[in-house]
Amino acid sequence: MSSSEQIAKNARRAGNILKTISDENRSKVLYKIHDELKENASSIEKANKLDLQAAAESGLAQSLMKRLDLFKGDKFDTMLQGIKDVAELEDPVGKLKLARQLDEDLVLYQVTAPVGVLLVIFESRPEVIANITALAIKSGNAGILKGGKESVNTFREMARVINSTIAKYEKDTGVPVGSVQLIETREDVSGLLTQDEYIDLVVPRGSNALVRKIKASTKIPVLGHADGICSIYLDADADLEKAKRITLDAKTNYPAGCNAMETLLVNPKLAKWWKVLEHLSRKGDVTLHLASDVKEAYVEKLKEENAFDEEVRSKIVDVDESTDFDREFLSLDCAVKFVESTKEAVEHINHHSSKHTDAIITENEAHAELFLKGIDSAGVYWNASTRFADGFRYGFGTEVGISTSKIHARGPVGLDGLVTYQYQIRGTGQVASDYLGAGGKRAFVHKDLDISQMTI
Amino acid sequence: MSSSEQIAKNARRAGNILKTISDENRSKVLYKIHDELKENASSIEKANKLDLQAAAESGLAQSLMKRLDLFKGDKFDTMLQGIKDVAELEDPVGKLKLARQLDEDLVLYQVTAPVGVLLVIFESRPEVIANITALAIKSGNAGILKGGKESVNTFREMARVINSTIAKYEKDTGVPVGSVQLIETREDVSGLLTQDEYIDLVVPRGSNALVRKIKASTKIPVLGHADGICSIYLDADADLEKAKRITLDAKTNYPAGCNAMETLLVNPKLAKWWKVLEHLSRKGDVTLHLASDVKEAYVEKLKEENAFDEEVRSKIVDVDESTDFDREFLSLDCAVKFVESTKEAVEHINHHSSKHTDAIITENEAHAELFLKGIDSAGVYWNASTRFADGFRYGFGTEVGISTSKIHARGPVGLDGLVTYQYQIRGTGQVASDYLGAGGKRAFVHKDLDISQMTI
Repeated sequence: MSSSEQIAKNARRAGNILKTISDENRSKVLYKIHDELKENASSIEKANKLDLQAAAESGLAQSLMKRLDLFKGDKFDTMLQGIKDVAELEDPVGKLKLARQLDEDLVLYQVTAPVGVLLVIFESRPEVIANITALAIKSGNAGILKGGKESVNTFREMARVINSTIAKYEKDTGVPVGSVQLIETREDVSGLLTQDEYIDLVVPRGSNALVRKIKASTKIPVLGHADGICSIYLDADADLEKAKRITLDAKTNYPAGCNAMETLLVNPKLAKWWKVLEHLSRKGDVTLHLASDVKEAYVEKLKEENAFDEEVRSKIVDVDESTDFDREFLSLDCAVKFVESTKEAVEHINHHSSKHTDAIITENEAHAELFLKGIDSAGVYWNASTRFADGFRYGFGTEVGISTSKIHARGPVGLDGLVTYQYQIRGTGQVASDYLGAGGKRAFVHKDLDISQMTI
Repeated sequence: MSSSEQIAKNARRAGNILKTISDENRSKVLYKIHDELKENASSIEKANKLDLQAAAESGLAQSLMKRLDLFKGDKFDTMLQGIKDVAELEDPVGKLKLARQLDEDLVLYQVTAPVGVLLVIFESRPEVIANITALAIKSGNAGILKGGKESVNTFREMARVINSTIAKYEKDTGVPVGSVQLIETREDVSGLLTQDEYIDLVVPRGSNALVRKIKASTKIPVLGHADGICSIYLDADADLEKAKRITLDAKTNYPAGCNAMETLLVNPKLAKWWKVLEHLSRKGDVTLHLASDVKEAYVEKLKEENAFDEEVRSKIVDVDESTDFDREFLSLDCAVKFVESTKEAVEHINHHSSKHTDAIITENEAHAELFLKGIDSAGVYWNASTRFADGFRYGFGTEVGISTSKIHARGPVGLDGLVTYQYQIRGTGQVASDYLGAGGKRAFVHKDLDISQMTI
């Protein structure tokens, strides 16, 4: 048996046990992990220093060094608090979603259940291992974890503490050894990506390149997004002040974010539309990639207003129509195009967007409803910044990731994305052949029961 | 552009429009399709005769001929009624699943939406094309349909009628031409299975071999099941009469069904457990594939009771442990094994089952709860036959298929399996940078609103 098959099988075995553990015990082990990580802070710091030293020697960029440093500011304490925060969330497992009377003493229940085995691949931020351990155990899933190689010593030491804690309390909590397995080599990852018999979901947390690569190399469902190409449509009936505020926020609040605006679609019937572009350039330092007709009109309007100065001029480039509307700039750049109607905006977005989050700015309700209905993305907003696409802003307590898949979980994903459901039937000896359709004469009742006060 | 890419793009375009069409208009076109198929019954019957003739000439088996014959008994009328039944179902699109106040005048909604483009591959039963057309349009999805080649003339004629109806009423209903595309060649199917940019879900309806082949050859999510290896566990505290009734039903009511029992796990501490096996053989004509210890004990017990006669003897074979517990017999055969506890039963099932449906028979609540919690299958039953795993029995109105995937849709799938969700935010100009975590000072409210009376 290959080592990756063995790892996957171990995880499956642990997952099958974890599924039966109460929320109380799953959370209890998280508090214990919190305590032991805290107690072992010095050995973790020592390991982290080794990683930082190796990184310094290999000449890693300063910004990446900062991400590696687990003891910078209150990062370590925030990480510890994060474990407790997850432990305190409502149990995502065993939630009743449907109860239906099929017949007397024969009831169908739909109940949430863990997905099973997660393979989580992330980059070098060392605190992520604690976060993922908490998410996996809280949701009753076994986790196989692979972090970036720059943090290998920190990961190894933290995994040692986590696993010895799980082992120490296994008798008490029932959470089994094997619930969290750290793997270290790339070979293991590629091996694991073929274990679709045992692994149920891959969660890549990291760069778009990482996600794209993983999606291309596995048959296991992947929860993640490769691209965040978000668009905003300025309707003819937009409020100019809202338009200025929202586009500036969406582009400049965090340009490297996947929920940042990359494309601005402008309806030229909007009075003074050019003020929005001017605002983006002057206040946001945004370089505008303008379609030729937009450029011509923009320059003309600004000249009429005696506003066409060097600050504005230096922020105009020609759009490359063949690539710029399918591109995540991840910088203070924005592609701009005229569209003549909401319908045309919807068509552009459905063709070019990555199905992440798109917004319309308008005071016209009919246009807004057309947009909200027509856009095929995880998030569709009316008069709000695309930057709201975020698990914490949605109130999910924690964020597992943002998904651009169309099935299972879409958009920002909370713990809900790590559970699925099962159907239970509780009967008293009923058989199908007594009922219509399978040879019998009894009819089904099919009466939905009120689940608001029900527990099973 | 390849023909399959063109087909996929057309479907995507149609799907984007269908998404915006009201339930009234989606259902209206289904009634029109019903009417026109009825009016064109004679041309469809003529085409069906051609298929039957070709099948007879090629020496197709009588049972398959029967499936091809669309005008046998009331099959055609039942098919027509099925279209109306789907039209009358509750709209699966636009259902509000969550409404959360993020701040004053800033509300997050989670709303069901069509998946987008379905590729549905089915075998030769001609009535399926009407059923799938109804399901796709009702759920706001564009459908690409490929049926078995034996019914090609019938499919072609029905597709002609369906598409001319859609075209005739396009102005009236908005449901676009291209919503339903019939493809005829295998080359097109393999081409389409690579169009993951445009196609969102593949729904194979047919043999396990078909499903397995499709799952192996596409990156698009597949809704379906390749195997139905269902087990029943007879606990030490089972009621013997319930056990006899349930196992007989589960094995013999429809042995070719995916929800039929294939494995029986027996706790030898159950008093008179052998009566259940004897009942299966005598009343159900079931051949028992017995593990050696089961066989020895079974023969001994029956001999003690002077019941070991030829009828019983002829229904005993040795189990092949290396294959029979991972096998869908699809016949009056059943693998039988002793397990010593509920825990051991759960472990056997989680290892061998296809995650379809498994049941425990017991009067012991603690054992039942352990089983219900521990089994990792779409359906887990207590004192009921596995044959209840069926969309109609669950009260779904219609059945799209049965899924053994662990994400998106599990078990019997109704129209719900053809929709996903989107998040809408309706605001009044809010930007993220005003809020905590993105540079501002405002806190989110995160108050869930009562959606029971709400429409948006």
